[in-house]
Amino acid sequence: MTKATVYVTYKESILDPQGQAVQKAASKLGYDKVYKIRIGKYFEIEGTGSAEELKTQVEALSNELLANPNMETYRVEVQD
Amino acid sequence: MTKATVYVTYKESILDPQGQAVQKAASKLGYDKVYKIRIGKYFEIEGTGSAEELKTQVEALSNELLANPNMETYRVEVQD
Repeated sequence: MTKATVYVTYKESILDPQGQAVQKAASKLGYDKVYKIRIGKYFEIEGTGSAEELKTQVEALSNELLANPNMETYRVEVQD
Repeated sequence: MTKATVYVTYKESILDPQGQAVQKAASKLGYDKVYKIRIGKYFEIEGTGSAEELKTQVEALSNELLANPNMETYRVEVQD
């Protein structure tokens, strides 16, 4: 069994209203050390085959399904 | 500026219908190496103060706001 992790986040240029809302709530709750929050998606994937084979498929899957290329960027990590 | 990352995922015992839906779509699209997908939330946090101070606040924030303790677990990483 091979494991991969995909991190999907908004591109820097894209506004993140959800992150801003959480950040405002955090400061209202008194968390004064926190000044910026950006929220993304996180996929834990289990697969078969070699790390190389899984990485290739997960990269293609991220491009096609997991991330919206217009607004989001993704990063794939594979653990042996 | 100090950076922290929070990973929020469902507890193992909790059903993840969204992850199952994405996994079914992946297999329909021909990604045969992928057999299990679990989806979580991912927070990129920028803050002030030392790594220790920010970690303490982000742990408390995760417990109070970012994760639902009944269904989710969280992990905090701080980068100096």
